Amino acid sequence: MSTQYNIAVVGATGVVGQELIKILEERKVPVGELRPLASARSAGKTVKFNDTHIEVQELTPDSFNGIDYALFSAGGAISEEFCPHAVKAGTVCIDNTSHFRMDPTVPLVVPEVNAADAHKHNGIIANPNCSTAQLVVALKPIYDEVGIARLVISTYQSVSGAGNEAIFELEEQSRALLNGQELAPEQFPHPIAFNAIPHIDKFTENGYTKEEMKMVGETKKIMGDDTIAVTATCVRIPVFICHSESVNIKTRKKISAARVRELLQAAPGVEVVDDVANNVYPLPRAVSGKNDVQVGRIRDDISQENGIELWCVGDNLRKGAALNAIQILEELIK
Amino acid sequence: MSTQYNIAVVGATGVVGQELIKILEERKVPVGELRPLASARSAGKTVKFNDTHIEVQELTPDSFNGIDYALFSAGGAISEEFCPHAVKAGTVCIDNTSHFRMDPTVPLVVPEVNAADAHKHNGIIANPNCSTAQLVVALKPIYDEVGIARLVISTYQSVSGAGNEAIFELEEQSRALLNGQELAPEQFPHPIAFNAIPHIDKFTENGYTKEEMKMVGETKKIMGDDTIAVTATCVRIPVFICHSESVNIKTRKKISAARVRELLQAAPGVEVVDDVANNVYPLPRAVSGKNDVQVGRIRDDISQENGIELWCVGDNLRKGAALNAIQILEELIK
Repeated sequence: MSTQYNIAVVGATGVVGQELIKILEERKVPVGELRPLASARSAGKTVKFNDTHIEVQELTPDSFNGIDYALFSAGGAISEEFCPHAVKAGTVCIDNTSHFRMDPTVPLVVPEVNAADAHKHNGIIANPNCSTAQLVVALKPIYDEVGIARLVISTYQSVSGAGNEAIFELEEQSRALLNGQELAPEQFPHPIAFNAIPHIDKFTENGYTKEEMKMVGETKKIMGDDTIAVTATCVRIPVFICHSESVNIKTRKKISAARVRELLQAAPGVEVVDDVANNVYPLPRAVSGKNDVQVGRIRDDISQENGIELWCVGDNLRKGAALNAIQILEELIK
Repeated sequence: MSTQYNIAVVGATGVVGQELIKILEERKVPVGELRPLASARSAGKTVKFNDTHIEVQELTPDSFNGIDYALFSAGGAISEEFCPHAVKAGTVCIDNTSHFRMDPTVPLVVPEVNAADAHKHNGIIANPNCSTAQLVVALKPIYDEVGIARLVISTYQSVSGAGNEAIFELEEQSRALLNGQELAPEQFPHPIAFNAIPHIDKFTENGYTKEEMKMVGETKKIMGDDTIAVTATCVRIPVFICHSESVNIKTRKKISAARVRELLQAAPGVEVVDDVANNVYPLPRAVSGKNDVQVGRIRDDISQENGIELWCVGDNLRKGAALNAIQILEELIK
């Protein structure tokens, strides 16, 4: 008889919560009880897991009795309040929000990069920001071979990172505009349909957004190297699912695009999709629903010694959120 | 009595051709005869100029008799074939295609940057690629103050750069997808609706696209400085009009973001739109139809000494094409 684990999903009705439950099922994680938790507003709804419909319970401080692992994806304020209750109940929390990520006592884990860190927890393990998770998976093999000195990143991020209502907003705004009407923005600071908004999360003192500073700080923490210089510009574009990234890399030693391609072909969690002669490169619509991060447009940077350019696309709901959290869980129970 | 000039527009029914005629009218260029030229297929259509409807004539080698200036925007092959006929007829050509741009005997001009070069022509003056024109307008004041060592650019380009049918394709594909249907791509190598395609123009030997290499070569030529290192990733996104660019700049001497803002506020052809505390930054939908290039998100690059990050948005049909061509014409006749 194999061990089974009781698992709570906090934020079970959200876009990432739904994906968490789907991936628990897909990957046959040995779940004993699945306990979906959400706000009072969503309590009483049901979620489907394997062949059963399970009623969503209201999240309270007492929700974690008998739970081995809790997967949190209901916003930073909820994690801040309820992770401590879960830890007190003996539950290990895998938190998908930004709240604990930069806490030096909390490991921040992408299993392909720093799986060992997952075991050094004090009850909470943080799951990185979507844009960072897919990036470090692609960078790790390059880092291990020649080191990385600096990164210049521009993102092309989908609306699903902002939740179910943001997906609906892109859909309805696009439909309205095609019919000559205008639908006022609610989920985004400006209309997202047929637009590009260089603003994700709040602005910080230095003119970068929090989203951009997450990429800077989290990349260094996961790679375990504070000397990597990172700059990022994070942009929301009218795509439903998958974030794309234009990544300019300065390596510490010279490496060729051909060698990068070879390394990435052998890397876990990465699929090289790079045959430009046949118009083959990663596209967000094609990566949607896929677990692997796709990398293409790999080329020698003509503007610097020791430079590589690449284009990296990942499903922000999977590798960028739910999949990575489940991979951390798998690492803990393996 | 003021001088008037006879002007031909080659490709008069195209998206840029239409914009050329609109801007000739808007800016009250002293036009004597306007002669719209196009392929046999479009001959007989009419274009509206001021209050008259003018019949489009078929482009032939003899189309340029009596024409002072010809504005070409009908593809590189047409310019290659017909510019020499125009020059023979004594016509000065302002060519919007890439055909002559890197020819060392042909000036490549953005009036805010290198207006004097326009006068050094042998009958042909080239208008730069859309992405380059808006970029150099924003870079010139920085270059003049502290020099530029290196640029890392990622673009977010609208479909209108690919012509009328590309605009129609984005519209129809979006509509189909919102109704659960799929419309096969014709103008682009992949579906553009709700997607991001890291591929504009053909791929070259070094893994960059021609569009990317245009940004590299044309930036150096217009700025008159071959020592500027440039790398670019050019991406098509589902936006109708306006190209956006994430630009990372390494300057030769230190400059602050505040000083860059000050310089750009005083620069011709630039509007600084940069008040992040109030969610104000350039957006493609807001810049559409505007002559000035908008620049925002100006900040000190935290990843390098002497670095500046900015976000630059321009109307690719105006500054990126028709407006710049008319500005060259104005420089020649002033």
